[in-house]
Amino acid sequence: MIQVTKGMRDFYPEDYRIQEWLFNIFKQASKLSGFEYYDCPVVEAEELYVRKAGEEITEQLYTFEDKSNRKLALRPEMTPSLARMVIQKFKEFPGKIKWTSIPQCFRYERMTRGRKREHYQWNLDYLGEKSMMAELDIIATAIHAFELMGLSSKNVRLRISNRKLLSDLLLGFGVLESQIIDVFLSIDKLGKIKDEQIIELLEKAGLSSDLSQKVLEVIYIKDIKKVKTFIDSCDASNEGYLEIQELFSLLEIYGFSDYLEFDFSIVRGLAYYTGTVFEFFDARKTLRAIAGGGRYDNLIQNLADVDLPPKAKGSIKKEAVGFGFGDVVIFELLKDLKLLPELKLTLDYYLIPFSEDEVKYLLPIVAKLRNQGFTAEIHYPPQKPKKMFEMASKRGAKNGIIAGSQELDKSILKVKNFRSREETQVRFTDFMDSIS
Amino acid sequence: MIQVTKGMRDFYPEDYRIQEWLFNIFKQASKLSGFEYYDCPVVEAEELYVRKAGEEITEQLYTFEDKSNRKLALRPEMTPSLARMVIQKFKEFPGKIKWTSIPQCFRYERMTRGRKREHYQWNLDYLGEKSMMAELDIIATAIHAFELMGLSSKNVRLRISNRKLLSDLLLGFGVLESQIIDVFLSIDKLGKIKDEQIIELLEKAGLSSDLSQKVLEVIYIKDIKKVKTFIDSCDASNEGYLEIQELFSLLEIYGFSDYLEFDFSIVRGLAYYTGTVFEFFDARKTLRAIAGGGRYDNLIQNLADVDLPPKAKGSIKKEAVGFGFGDVVIFELLKDLKLLPELKLTLDYYLIPFSEDEVKYLLPIVAKLRNQGFTAEIHYPPQKPKKMFEMASKRGAKNGIIAGSQELDKSILKVKNFRSREETQVRFTDFMDSIS
Repeated sequence: MIQVTKGMRDFYPEDYRIQEWLFNIFKQASKLSGFEYYDCPVVEAEELYVRKAGEEITEQLYTFEDKSNRKLALRPEMTPSLARMVIQKFKEFPGKIKWTSIPQCFRYERMTRGRKREHYQWNLDYLGEKSMMAELDIIATAIHAFELMGLSSKNVRLRISNRKLLSDLLLGFGVLESQIIDVFLSIDKLGKIKDEQIIELLEKAGLSSDLSQKVLEVIYIKDIKKVKTFIDSCDASNEGYLEIQELFSLLEIYGFSDYLEFDFSIVRGLAYYTGTVFEFFDARKTLRAIAGGGRYDNLIQNLADVDLPPKAKGSIKKEAVGFGFGDVVIFELLKDLKLLPELKLTLDYYLIPFSEDEVKYLLPIVAKLRNQGFTAEIHYPPQKPKKMFEMASKRGAKNGIIAGSQELDKSILKVKNFRSREETQVRFTDFMDSIS
Repeated sequence: MIQVTKGMRDFYPEDYRIQEWLFNIFKQASKLSGFEYYDCPVVEAEELYVRKAGEEITEQLYTFEDKSNRKLALRPEMTPSLARMVIQKFKEFPGKIKWTSIPQCFRYERMTRGRKREHYQWNLDYLGEKSMMAELDIIATAIHAFELMGLSSKNVRLRISNRKLLSDLLLGFGVLESQIIDVFLSIDKLGKIKDEQIIELLEKAGLSSDLSQKVLEVIYIKDIKKVKTFIDSCDASNEGYLEIQELFSLLEIYGFSDYLEFDFSIVRGLAYYTGTVFEFFDARKTLRAIAGGGRYDNLIQNLADVDLPPKAKGSIKKEAVGFGFGDVVIFELLKDLKLLPELKLTLDYYLIPFSEDEVKYLLPIVAKLRNQGFTAEIHYPPQKPKKMFEMASKRGAKNGIIAGSQELDKSILKVKNFRSREETQVRFTDFMDSIS
């Protein structure tokens, strides 16, 4: 039997209802903060994702060739598409951009851990703002979404770090500029592989054994003041430190201090982040990260520069902060916490004809009800009353409109409220007139 | 510069807003009639679309191989996916199924006529109902959608035919059962290619020159009674005739007779239709068909039977009526008729700080407003008042909350209604308390 494509999900109506509930919260939170929705094709040129660093996301690209041998890919993430769209119409967007989207993203991964090959990911991107106000707006919007789901700082925490801060410190320790990205991607594995393996990765990146140990030590610091001591001691730049201080301060003023944790081990697995990086995780620490993001001030310029003539290079640039929130881990959390709503089909009216004659008698009522914005369905073909009332209940009907030969003869209707069980008789014409 | 994939569309926020308006109408109309939303992956096994007939849709399949050499395709239409989903969980859906979806569909076509390689298509499918009540429900739902867009029978017409009726007649004329599908697909080209070319196609399908001429003649009949005369004269079955009569009758009772036209040349380009076929088109006849559908009673059984052991063949079957409504032609029509709404970003509140100090003063208000369901944004960084008020207008703000050093010192705020231009002073704490 032909099956759903391996690693991908079907959404039957009951699955879809819960998906829609979540997406509506994403959309509602985005709207509250003035983020505008955009969309673009799921298929992009493969070259959009070709980056040098050994990121998991580009290694697992779902690539293929079309009939003209164009190299294409199913998008693994939305940020490069957003960057492409902004670059293509750069002059139309001179100021800030606050955009949101809920794209389905794909990766081609051997499915050893039961991970899927697709997920939906709510994206928020704030472009053209170099201050921490961009981070604040995105993080605040994410927290508003959590709270709309019924979650609070009791269930969800925000871990923040800053790549500039980390690289300032690493450079102060003697790590080379050229080694930084590899060090970041190694640190991103923390908790996923053993510490010894991290050390191996760091040494593979060119760090001495001592330096690797020192890096691992620093990563475990949870107290931002202690980081400051390190910075001062090795005379490193404190730009990253000032940024993270400012972001903490803004989030506290906004009212979300209960969510905050400093965590140096947060670096995120994407090569393009340049400053703030953050992750939301469940307070019990049993699940993978729920959502995360960071600042990527150079991505748009780097993508644009590839095709710009030497003179024009650097002319297209925009600072940016982005955020992705997948639909898989959050469902696990909401399920664990019993916060998933029970959603069923409902109908305002279910029309119950006792015979074929009453079908035609009732059809104009169905038409008028729908025309006036009421959800309505007619039972067909007529069956025994018990069967029809069972179906009314199964379809979530609030009211029934019932007609047999008696009602037809007298041009009346029985109207039944299924909740109060109240039943009334009304004239057909009166009922028609009352629908509005 | 990396471009959007050839033949595909980006949706910038202003494009998306109008798209969302249309999709909300599709969803609203579906809901009014009790259709439940479902979804599934855009990627399917290629074999799901392998059918014998020479349909345009399977010739233009967007196929590719994944890294495991699986033959996959981007879906060209939703119906086979729906059939697959129903077959995979057949026992869970013993009765009727009324489902809806708005999938993006793809085709790989040489883009000679400016046609795109993707479109979104609203789908309605009604399964498990053999009577014309299924057709009625789908067609009525479509018309409710048109009316929600502001269209009426003045702008949109429904052309209905019935493949059973046509094949009854063709068989009566002496066309062979085995030639029927080819004849249908030839007739579907009517209006797209010249009549002489249709004749050529019919002859290629094996019809004599005389018979081909006769078929072409019959197709042009617009009066259903005349068709009846033909049927009686060649002693053909009148099952299809009774069906179309019943459907016309139901649609008239429902109240949509103004939309109806009988049109024998409507056959639709899909091989799997078995009975009713219909198309909505603009009354001026200047555009391609807006939407269309038909009955496909055998598709589910045919798809299921492929993998069933001989004994079980025929055990999975469900009558079905389906409908597809693309997002391209309707936009052309609505644009022509000036019925597209003007949709702009709006915000309930725009917060205007005169300096950095007031930014932090105003942030808790932003937080509370959003928390209570108001859309709110803060201007950053502070600029000259004129610039900030311009931006408030550009962002569609209804109200402004303004604070300079005076307001900060006195713990007050200026609240301005941008529509009435009314401006009031309130205490910070009073305003905070008033947000709910």
